[in-house]
Amino acid sequence: MLDPMQRWRQYGEKPDYAGPLTFGGVPCTQDPAELAGFDVAIVGAPMDELVSDRPGARFAPRAIRTASCPPGPHLEAKVDAFSELRIVDYGDAAVVPAQPLVSHAAIEDTVREVVDAGLMPLIIGGDHSITAPDARAVAAKHGPLGLVHFDTHTDTGEGVFGAILSHGTVMRTIVDEGVIDPRRYVQIGLRGYWPGEPEFSWQAEQGITSLFMHDVRDRGIRDVIAQTIEVVGAGPVFLTVDIDVLDPAFIPGGTGTPEPGGMTTVELLWAARTVAAGLDVVGADLVEVIPTDVGSADPAVLAAERVVREILTGVAMRKR
Amino acid sequence: MLDPMQRWRQYGEKPDYAGPLTFGGVPCTQDPAELAGFDVAIVGAPMDELVSDRPGARFAPRAIRTASCPPGPHLEAKVDAFSELRIVDYGDAAVVPAQPLVSHAAIEDTVREVVDAGLMPLIIGGDHSITAPDARAVAAKHGPLGLVHFDTHTDTGEGVFGAILSHGTVMRTIVDEGVIDPRRYVQIGLRGYWPGEPEFSWQAEQGITSLFMHDVRDRGIRDVIAQTIEVVGAGPVFLTVDIDVLDPAFIPGGTGTPEPGGMTTVELLWAARTVAAGLDVVGADLVEVIPTDVGSADPAVLAAERVVREILTGVAMRKR
Amino acid sequence: MLDPMQRWRQYGEKPDYAGPLTFGGVPCTQDPAELAGFDVAIVGAPMDELVSDRPGARFAPRAIRTASCPPGPHLEAKVDAFSELRIVDYGDAAVVPAQPLVSHAAIEDTVREVVDAGLMPLIIGGDHSITAPDARAVAAKHGPLGLVHFDTHTDTGEGVFGAILSHGTVMRTIVDEGVIDPRRYVQIGLRGYWPGEPEFSWQAEQGITSLFMHDVRDRGIRDVIAQTIEVVGAGPVFLTVDIDVLDPAFIPGGTGTPEPGGMTTVELLWAARTVAAGLDVVGADLVEVIPTDVGSADPAVLAAERVVREILTGVAMRKR
Amino acid sequence: MLDPMQRWRQYGEKPDYAGPLTFGGVPCTQDPAELAGFDVAIVGAPMDELVSDRPGARFAPRAIRTASCPPGPHLEAKVDAFSELRIVDYGDAAVVPAQPLVSHAAIEDTVREVVDAGLMPLIIGGDHSITAPDARAVAAKHGPLGLVHFDTHTDTGEGVFGAILSHGTVMRTIVDEGVIDPRRYVQIGLRGYWPGEPEFSWQAEQGITSLFMHDVRDRGIRDVIAQTIEVVGAGPVFLTVDIDVLDPAFIPGGTGTPEPGGMTTVELLWAARTVAAGLDVVGADLVEVIPTDVGSADPAVLAAERVVREILTGVAMRKR
Amino acid sequence: MLDPMQRWRQYGEKPDYAGPLTFGGVPCTQDPAELAGFDVAIVGAPMDELVSDRPGARFAPRAIRTASCPPGPHLEAKVDAFSELRIVDYGDAAVVPAQPLVSHAAIEDTVREVVDAGLMPLIIGGDHSITAPDARAVAAKHGPLGLVHFDTHTDTGEGVFGAILSHGTVMRTIVDEGVIDPRRYVQIGLRGYWPGEPEFSWQAEQGITSLFMHDVRDRGIRDVIAQTIEVVGAGPVFLTVDIDVLDPAFIPGGTGTPEPGGMTTVELLWAARTVAAGLDVVGADLVEVIPTDVGSADPAVLAAERVVREILTGVAMRKR
Amino acid sequence: MLDPMQRWRQYGEKPDYAGPLTFGGVPCTQDPAELAGFDVAIVGAPMDELVSDRPGARFAPRAIRTASCPPGPHLEAKVDAFSELRIVDYGDAAVVPAQPLVSHAAIEDTVREVVDAGLMPLIIGGDHSITAPDARAVAAKHGPLGLVHFDTHTDTGEGVFGAILSHGTVMRTIVDEGVIDPRRYVQIGLRGYWPGEPEFSWQAEQGITSLFMHDVRDRGIRDVIAQTIEVVGAGPVFLTVDIDVLDPAFIPGGTGTPEPGGMTTVELLWAARTVAAGLDVVGADLVEVIPTDVGSADPAVLAAERVVREILTGVAMRKR
Repeated sequence: MLDPMQRWRQYGEKPDYAGPLTFGGVPCTQDPAELAGFDVAIVGAPMDELVSDRPGARFAPRAIRTASCPPGPHLEAKVDAFSELRIVDYGDAAVVPAQPLVSHAAIEDTVREVVDAGLMPLIIGGDHSITAPDARAVAAKHGPLGLVHFDTHTDTGEGVFGAILSHGTVMRTIVDEGVIDPRRYVQIGLRGYWPGEPEFSWQAEQGITSLFMHDVRDRGIRDVIAQTIEVVGAGPVFLTVDIDVLDPAFIPGGTGTPEPGGMTTVELLWAARTVAAGLDVVGADLVEVIPTDVGSADPAVLAAERVVREILTGVAMRKR
Repeated sequence: MLDPMQRWRQYGEKPDYAGPLTFGGVPCTQDPAELAGFDVAIVGAPMDELVSDRPGARFAPRAIRTASCPPGPHLEAKVDAFSELRIVDYGDAAVVPAQPLVSHAAIEDTVREVVDAGLMPLIIGGDHSITAPDARAVAAKHGPLGLVHFDTHTDTGEGVFGAILSHGTVMRTIVDEGVIDPRRYVQIGLRGYWPGEPEFSWQAEQGITSLFMHDVRDRGIRDVIAQTIEVVGAGPVFLTVDIDVLDPAFIPGGTGTPEPGGMTTVELLWAARTVAAGLDVVGADLVEVIPTDVGSADPAVLAAERVVREILTGVAMRKR
Repeated sequence: MLDPMQRWRQYGEKPDYAGPLTFGGVPCTQDPAELAGFDVAIVGAPMDELVSDRPGARFAPRAIRTASCPPGPHLEAKVDAFSELRIVDYGDAAVVPAQPLVSHAAIEDTVREVVDAGLMPLIIGGDHSITAPDARAVAAKHGPLGLVHFDTHTDTGEGVFGAILSHGTVMRTIVDEGVIDPRRYVQIGLRGYWPGEPEFSWQAEQGITSLFMHDVRDRGIRDVIAQTIEVVGAGPVFLTVDIDVLDPAFIPGGTGTPEPGGMTTVELLWAARTVAAGLDVVGADLVEVIPTDVGSADPAVLAAERVVREILTGVAMRKR
Repeated sequence: MLDPMQRWRQYGEKPDYAGPLTFGGVPCTQDPAELAGFDVAIVGAPMDELVSDRPGARFAPRAIRTASCPPGPHLEAKVDAFSELRIVDYGDAAVVPAQPLVSHAAIEDTVREVVDAGLMPLIIGGDHSITAPDARAVAAKHGPLGLVHFDTHTDTGEGVFGAILSHGTVMRTIVDEGVIDPRRYVQIGLRGYWPGEPEFSWQAEQGITSLFMHDVRDRGIRDVIAQTIEVVGAGPVFLTVDIDVLDPAFIPGGTGTPEPGGMTTVELLWAARTVAAGLDVVGADLVEVIPTDVGSADPAVLAAERVVREILTGVAMRKR
Repeated sequence: MLDPMQRWRQYGEKPDYAGPLTFGGVPCTQDPAELAGFDVAIVGAPMDELVSDRPGARFAPRAIRTASCPPGPHLEAKVDAFSELRIVDYGDAAVVPAQPLVSHAAIEDTVREVVDAGLMPLIIGGDHSITAPDARAVAAKHGPLGLVHFDTHTDTGEGVFGAILSHGTVMRTIVDEGVIDPRRYVQIGLRGYWPGEPEFSWQAEQGITSLFMHDVRDRGIRDVIAQTIEVVGAGPVFLTVDIDVLDPAFIPGGTGTPEPGGMTTVELLWAARTVAAGLDVVGADLVEVIPTDVGSADPAVLAAERVVREILTGVAMRKR
Repeated sequence: MLDPMQRWRQYGEKPDYAGPLTFGGVPCTQDPAELAGFDVAIVGAPMDELVSDRPGARFAPRAIRTASCPPGPHLEAKVDAFSELRIVDYGDAAVVPAQPLVSHAAIEDTVREVVDAGLMPLIIGGDHSITAPDARAVAAKHGPLGLVHFDTHTDTGEGVFGAILSHGTVMRTIVDEGVIDPRRYVQIGLRGYWPGEPEFSWQAEQGITSLFMHDVRDRGIRDVIAQTIEVVGAGPVFLTVDIDVLDPAFIPGGTGTPEPGGMTTVELLWAARTVAAGLDVVGADLVEVIPTDVGSADPAVLAAERVVREILTGVAMRKR
């Protein structure tokens, strides 16, 4: 197993810009037999063929790994996820260009290997369509899942330009498949001009809970998250974060369908950690990041890396 | 009349990046005879020769059209402006480079065609000097106007480097001309280090109301807008938004005289819509955007596009 | 028919940054009935779902139109293509996101409308896969075509990651379909590390002529183009230019699979014009441009626009 | 003494982009004899050899001068620092590349010249290691100093990769040296994942006060600054602002170790001014800015310039 | 007189990024009385109000100074212009925003001060319209001037959008005024699609020599420059370099009307030096640079700085 | 040993943007025992603390790996280096920030492990100072080395700002140490304004051969390389390529001390391969690349990756 820390062991840390590239500098393997003994696996899903507007999320898994800083104690939560949890970087699923169904199958296989080995998968996309294979693989073990879904958009379109396979239809697909229990499904941060009445009617029929950005603005993020945790309740949960829930100021150029008037990182980082600490999160993903700058300087990539880290911190808090 | 939706009619929507370029994908004409039957006309005013610092706003009208997403219901206001209102893109006024007076005349002519046809003009600049021809053309029909003015700067200089014709003098000019009624004129978001005592004295004599960024910070945007609506009151109003009222974080590189410590988009989008819904707005413009990135990824351009859309939404709310 | 020059008629020219967006400021229609009387139609094909590396070419048609300067006489060739030829902008084909076969069909339909109306189509991609629908529509009228193909890569892979539908297989596909006559097919500018022996063997069997970048370096572009014209000879020809034939210096960040060590614009502009003037070019496309900057400042977009213009100039020279 | 205003005297102002480059357009000298009669000297310290991640702060002093706007009254504080205080630009210390100790000595010498002449030094870095020579030179005159320290990180590491000389150890160094009185030392804005228990234990032993970003989030900036002023109390104070205390949204790409979830400019600008007005600040620096864009359009550089200006405004308020 | 080298004297050099900002680190004055004893004065002319397309050249004088490296011997010419010539930075002319005629007058005044003091002026623009005040001031002393003009465009339009005052008309203006002797006027590097027959007819009547980019391509730069020197011959000469004569690859995003298919820096640097060494150049300017990146990394700014330096080297060669 | 191809074996290739990050997708190890059986090891040396101007080369090793395309036959040389040679990625040396001597020692140790295992090291910097530890480790096995040195600068300063340890003194250091035999040392591509007479005198005394950029311009690259191969002759050779030998057009923003008027990639790629094929190159490095853009789109990073690949191709040609 390749260990990025190997050559810097004497220092107890490694320069962010040196050594093999893994998330947070954790060891890396592509062999399922080596997953034993770990708690969480980071998996990359670099595909973006199913977007409806700006592509580029295929570059996010590498960029987010590049932006990751060393382990250390969370200064607010007082817990170091990298000490509490044994975390491994399981590389990228075997996606291929221009064949989204092949890529979805590869992602589902890789996540299933993680789940079967008893680890929690944390997948870095990729466009939001990957939540379908992600959640399917997790539900195959845990049964129907609650869903906490941070996003500008509901992604519950019946079709996008007549196509079922899209980053804009994925949530309807996995609800229809029974992977997600809609009564335990909460959307947070909705705003803008999509979708319309038909989608919201379908959502209402299903019993999905929608919390809008104006709820965050008017009621505060603490109240919104408290309601989320209450609605989802006990039982296994999938947590999916579309980075476009943040205001474009926090992710300049860094997502495919940005929508002004969104969350701040102060809100999202707290919320992601609190959800992960307060619910039985058995799988998670972070999607729709488009890297635009080199290394650790890109605000969107940085924000995404920290969201992943807050989820890990929340899981560590819950474990403790 | 060129209709961008024509080839995508079967889908009910059009990819943002395809088809003829108009605001929101609405039909486009340059013929005043075809304005009949519409409610609102979008007009571009691509000139920036009268700035005092960084030029580039001449590229904004095209960039803002490029960043526009398809019509749809506003998720908070529950109204689709593109359904309530018949909106047309009337192209750009016949500006010419390096001759700002010629450009001003062309802008005034084009806006007047819109007003004469009974439509509300919504002009996309361009530097802030265009508010002179914009407001003159509107006042020619509606008489002296109230003015709601979102901006970092008052733009009421007596001269800038000795020149009367400048983006920093325009508000004094149109007050002096009687186009604007100063007692129904409210400035929102002022901050920084300009102007000085002489300008504020003149403003006080005129009865202009100045609401600073520290008012927004300390009293909240709701209170500030409530006061605005009360001061302006009944009667025709022009609404002008200088994008630099936003903090540079929301418009990185995207305006000519950025000033840290400004509004968030959460504040401005709500405020623009609320003003448009609460007052008799008969004309509006959005100015001082400098595009820096391609397509729909530029935060400043996106924010500007959404401000235009919030104004349209407010107008639609009022109409309903 | 929308005419961008309409409001600037008195000046005989239009600012590049103002007015409706069409190629070179020519009139625009989406109605096949209005094609009559024109010689050449510009068609956009904004799709990039079939790339194997970096996406983004979907944004090229709008960007290339934005970068186009006004008509005028070519200072070397002494001919103004916009005077000699009647050119129309026929908008974009009705592509849809994430469904490349649907987009291919839409492109083929639109190009066929142009060909059926008796015009030469000049298509702006888009990834290189669009040459399939482009050439099919042209061959449907003119029969098997010669092909002049400027590119770093042969695009004659048997499959890319097992897929036949790819920007890396398109030339094999249209040779296999009989759309292209391989003995009249010349590739210019090949370099780098792809493809391998199997592809070159297949090419040799077909009788395809490969001219490498080291041929350009050692023999000079004039000699290479002379051979090209001789090999292709009489009969209808399709001309396809992949912008990555240029060195990355001339297209920084501006294509999906850039390869150092390529052509200069001095070479390519002359070559494209000379081919168009010396052969019976009945259709052409320009592909694989990824815009990275706003407006007319992006070198790749500018180079692409000028390649289109050189093709038009060559066609005008031949007509004259 | 070179006076940038000289050629524009008749206008009472100077275009931001023209004339010799000094902070705020104030006069510039490099001669200690000419310091007499001034109150405050701006000093550049362009070095970044002691960073642990991204370099580039060596370019900040020039960039921040470039971004400075003309003097004028602070619209909230109603005081013009450039009228109340006589401010001079004392150029850059004689730093040299790749020799940080030589540069530190040069910085200390230059700041000492300023202090010896009776002026308050305001140093623009450079990486945070410059606070060592800055504070030493000030303490040489004023004795042990209180310290107000805005930052994401405590910079109190015992070593960074085994090295004592680092931007991550500087605060421990100057506390150990007796330059700073730890009981009068307040840190504001801490967050993220560094440092760990050993550093916080050492800090607690010293009596250092740590106020975290979650304190700002939960208690509000006013409360946090009130506590700061109370803890530091009477006596000479050094004020150091690491720009990374701001959220990356406000400084995109603009610092070496950005950390999401930080302050807004609305908070920091008010806080910096309030500290400067409320305490006996005898020296200050602003560090860790990495310029990424030309001129006055870079949000990080702009924010940094305004922080300097707020400090000047606070000092002017206190003087008055 | 402010001397950037002052604090670094012991090293014999200064870091490029430190110290007061002047061209090449030479001393700076704004006082005409201090010009005595110098041979050449660098003057900035930061205005761009007269462009017809992309503005931004107002930022070039500072950017070009920022990109300047220390003095040293030219490795090919074996002469150090900074040793042979006494060079001073005379700051920027007192341009003002939005008032091009006022700025032209200020530029002419400043250049006249230089000429009157017996120095050769080397002006850094700014848009190409500044060649009018530049050449007028020089001709006022030396009489009608020869002109060597590197450019893509002739800049001899009779009007641009009906205006005489434009960067596209300047050469016609100064020929008409008798400032330039058209029979001693050579244009080098023309290409693209402008101007048309009327302008070339006027040029032919005047006896102006036009050398096109295809002359450079086909005959070589040495032959083209030999002809230039022969045509211009003895007598005072003004040398003007529009940076757009370079191919966009060498100036990506770095000029207002870029035209692919241009010169390389290898060609232009040699040519500028050879012209300066071979003719009696009594004044020169370098125009139309738009900075797009910070510091010394912007290719266009770097190329511009080196063109200025090659002119100085040529002048030094001739002097020696 | 981690093998990036593992999950994509069925396809015979891997998407450039997916899988563990190694050079060209070759296997990666950090264990010297696993080097046996390989011919060449890629080693990263991410340090830039010894530059005299712009830092950033610490980010190059990762960026160059990111830009690497899959193995394949060189289309001109008809050899696939990845088939002929067994290549391994040996990770990065254990550099640490802000301590260049510690980093040099780590680099020398890592290269020595490679050399001791019988492999040829190919090191990716980092600033040019790394050639000292690189060449020392190679000479420790092979004895004094010939040196082929592509660069704008000689890097033979006696000191830079009084410091011996610098990227500007490295070549003098290793000549003085006897690591390099100066009579077998050829410099190619020198230009600009540095160094001066003292350095060139010292070089002449040593018998170093300097070939300037004007030699390349006037004699052609083939002639220059022929002379290089003749001068260096038989015996072990180190090959060092400073990417700034290229013209800034080919590396926009991509190096620390760019100098206009340099080589094209067409020249450098051929030259690097020809040197590697024609001499006994036992070690090589590629230095001074500053990444500025994400992924494979940055021209400088791409050019650097291809230079490495050409060296590998040349070595493979020689082996065959």
